[in-house]
Amino acid sequence: MQSNQDIEMMAVKIIEVTVEDIRFPTSDELVGSDAMHTNPDYSCAYVTLRTNVPNLVGVGTTFTLGKGTDVVVECAKALNEQFIGKSVVGIVKDYPNFYRSITSEPQLRWVGPEKGVLHLATAALLNAFWDLYAKIQRKPLWKVFVDMTPEELVGLLDFRYLSDVITKEEAITMLKKLEPTKQTREKEMLELGYPSYTTSAGWMGYSDEKITRLCKGAIEEGFSHIKIKVGADIEDDIRRCRLIRSILGPDRKLMVDANQRWDVNQAIDYMKRLAEFNPWWIEEPTSPDDILGHAAIAKAIAPLKVATGEQCQNRIIFKQLLQSNAISFCQPDSCRLAGPTEVITVMILCAKFGVPVCMHAGGVGLCEYVNHLCIIDYIIVSGSLENRISEYVPHLNEHYIHPSIMKKTRYQCPSHSGYGGGLKEQTIKDHRYPNGPVWLSKNKPPVHEKNA
Amino acid sequence: MQSNQDIEMMAVKIIEVTVEDIRFPTSDELVGSDAMHTNPDYSCAYVTLRTNVPNLVGVGTTFTLGKGTDVVVECAKALNEQFIGKSVVGIVKDYPNFYRSITSEPQLRWVGPEKGVLHLATAALLNAFWDLYAKIQRKPLWKVFVDMTPEELVGLLDFRYLSDVITKEEAITMLKKLEPTKQTREKEMLELGYPSYTTSAGWMGYSDEKITRLCKGAIEEGFSHIKIKVGADIEDDIRRCRLIRSILGPDRKLMVDANQRWDVNQAIDYMKRLAEFNPWWIEEPTSPDDILGHAAIAKAIAPLKVATGEQCQNRIIFKQLLQSNAISFCQPDSCRLAGPTEVITVMILCAKFGVPVCMHAGGVGLCEYVNHLCIIDYIIVSGSLENRISEYVPHLNEHYIHPSIMKKTRYQCPSHSGYGGGLKEQTIKDHRYPNGPVWLSKNKPPVHEKNA
Repeated sequence: MQSNQDIEMMAVKIIEVTVEDIRFPTSDELVGSDAMHTNPDYSCAYVTLRTNVPNLVGVGTTFTLGKGTDVVVECAKALNEQFIGKSVVGIVKDYPNFYRSITSEPQLRWVGPEKGVLHLATAALLNAFWDLYAKIQRKPLWKVFVDMTPEELVGLLDFRYLSDVITKEEAITMLKKLEPTKQTREKEMLELGYPSYTTSAGWMGYSDEKITRLCKGAIEEGFSHIKIKVGADIEDDIRRCRLIRSILGPDRKLMVDANQRWDVNQAIDYMKRLAEFNPWWIEEPTSPDDILGHAAIAKAIAPLKVATGEQCQNRIIFKQLLQSNAISFCQPDSCRLAGPTEVITVMILCAKFGVPVCMHAGGVGLCEYVNHLCIIDYIIVSGSLENRISEYVPHLNEHYIHPSIMKKTRYQCPSHSGYGGGLKEQTIKDHRYPNGPVWLSKNKPPVHEKNA
Repeated sequence: MQSNQDIEMMAVKIIEVTVEDIRFPTSDELVGSDAMHTNPDYSCAYVTLRTNVPNLVGVGTTFTLGKGTDVVVECAKALNEQFIGKSVVGIVKDYPNFYRSITSEPQLRWVGPEKGVLHLATAALLNAFWDLYAKIQRKPLWKVFVDMTPEELVGLLDFRYLSDVITKEEAITMLKKLEPTKQTREKEMLELGYPSYTTSAGWMGYSDEKITRLCKGAIEEGFSHIKIKVGADIEDDIRRCRLIRSILGPDRKLMVDANQRWDVNQAIDYMKRLAEFNPWWIEEPTSPDDILGHAAIAKAIAPLKVATGEQCQNRIIFKQLLQSNAISFCQPDSCRLAGPTEVITVMILCAKFGVPVCMHAGGVGLCEYVNHLCIIDYIIVSGSLENRISEYVPHLNEHYIHPSIMKKTRYQCPSHSGYGGGLKEQTIKDHRYPNGPVWLSKNKPPVHEKNA
């Protein structure tokens, strides 16, 4: 029999979906610039799911770099119909079928499947959906998943195309082993939080003086791991690595990130040259699609280690990166994978292969999501902090109603209900593209609107 | 010194780009239905590049299944600015940089890169571009490429992320070996055409009676290779394979296509059961992203052979399928890869690995493009017809100004200038979505337009 509370929850239905194009003019100051993404305007497709309960909404985003946000917005609108009129709790009860109805919609899947614009749009919608569900549960999202039994959690996940490396039964068995100790880890997270590293010091467009100042600042804040961008020019990379290593000293960790700039053999040659600076990992040495390329690089540069994930399109790519020993650190993106359940699926794959998850963050909204996700990984999936550290880049977090909270370089457990992707009302008003005041003042209408 | 003709050609500039959403209600009759795509409305994003020369336009399409076409259209519009005001011949002279400015645009690449909606939109634009260039040259597209020297052709291609398996120098050497005999093959193609197979008989939604009638018809037309859809239900697949093999007799080739329906171990188990019908290949046994999965299947079911490609997103995936011995037949899609130059890049990779290219076709417009591409492969890249055969599905070809021409089951060399993607004016008027008469009469506005 259903309880009164169950019946009440069942009655919450999604009645409207809106999607907005929100952009920040970060390219003005080269925030976030790297060898491939030279002028990003950090942006998001911003989804709001409205319900039949006044003021009960779910919000969710996917991160973008400016151009193309409008296309993701259009795609999210094209997926709207799957949500309208449905009970939120009803969707969760039948989640695998619901999820498949979006990720493998018979006509839309041709323009994916499960990748690129379509999957980013799916991510925004499902992030909003889980925000809404957590609000109905009156819990922060991390707590929603942490409180599930292994059977309940695995029951939500889509293991299509994974069964050659892991079955649902095996995943349940793995999670069950950690169940008796999960309360200890939850207490630890509530007290201490999850370790992070900073990328704020080493963007490509920064001067030496600025890098030095930011590096010293990061050390003063207590960061023991710092990541910098490489890949545009190897001689310049060597010079900057030397500068930063001299500031960090021999013991702090230095990570380097090539943002896909190299071919396989280039990556091998260049990493041999950067080896003297003892990088803890090389991130995105080559194309995110090149599983065998990453595996070849990993083999050739060992004991140096390879990391990737922020542009890996779905669980199937991660499965193969793990199968082929291509990565020693796995860096999924909370807005590229299709919501928290696909992220958790990748975490389970990583646990099976003994590869640490170090979530990708930065951009806009990623730190807010990662805050929940890394805690889930520790408490119920990996049970370990060894070689695990989540990215932290606080640009733009002043725009969030519930920004990620950092204390002593650790992400603090969110205590508010939901998933935390909500932007402040004024921010939304100001940053709507192309007609918000921030963009109107720039007087730069998008070219394709003129020519269409 | 430039000739007068060169100067005249240099003066042709692109002044306007329009993109339209054209859809055909093919789901009414289950044309094109398979285990994953149960109700396709064959559609295309239709690009027109207008120039400063009256009536000189380039048209190009990418194929879609209905929903999502609007998103591809939006994305193509977002890429417009790269074309406006540029000289067509000037673009070709600097093609690698031009190509990279689209496929790796610093902000847009985040919603790809080189995959899904973004790459499909790129395909439509570049197909239109090469149509325009061929019209300026007053040649059919196949002849434009066939008449290039190996250096000229390879100079157009993007080998980023491929240099670990092939260099441009190696590609030029390979193509040079075939140069002395290319006129003989061109003559052969002009006389006989390129062999094809039919998929028209075996769509998933068809009755046994209809399958039998269509199979017999195909045999009467002279087809020696017939492909059918499997994957929804293995017992039903066995029954249909038995029926079709009984009609085909032991010598004609039967290919089966699972359209990604299976996990790896399922594919292995099911193909062992279908082995008694001696399939020539199993197409798309699992996810198009699962390179290692295809390799595992290929190893387990040998001597049965694996084919895939229509949903493989770019040259980097094909590189790995070849590296890992995952496929014995390679089936790139002319509208998923970024125009003819990426298709030719994949053909060169296949030639290096000795894997035959059997182009994917069907849908709307694919046969018209494949007609040019398979001829290019034979004359200048592979130099062989062994185990090579291109798909042919004539649905909707009555809508084309220059439909692909089939004689005795062979694609005939196109003789008109351009790439052949042009739809008849009346077809465009009738099939515009959602306001063309064909769609207005259905009275089914797209749901997301109501809710947006």
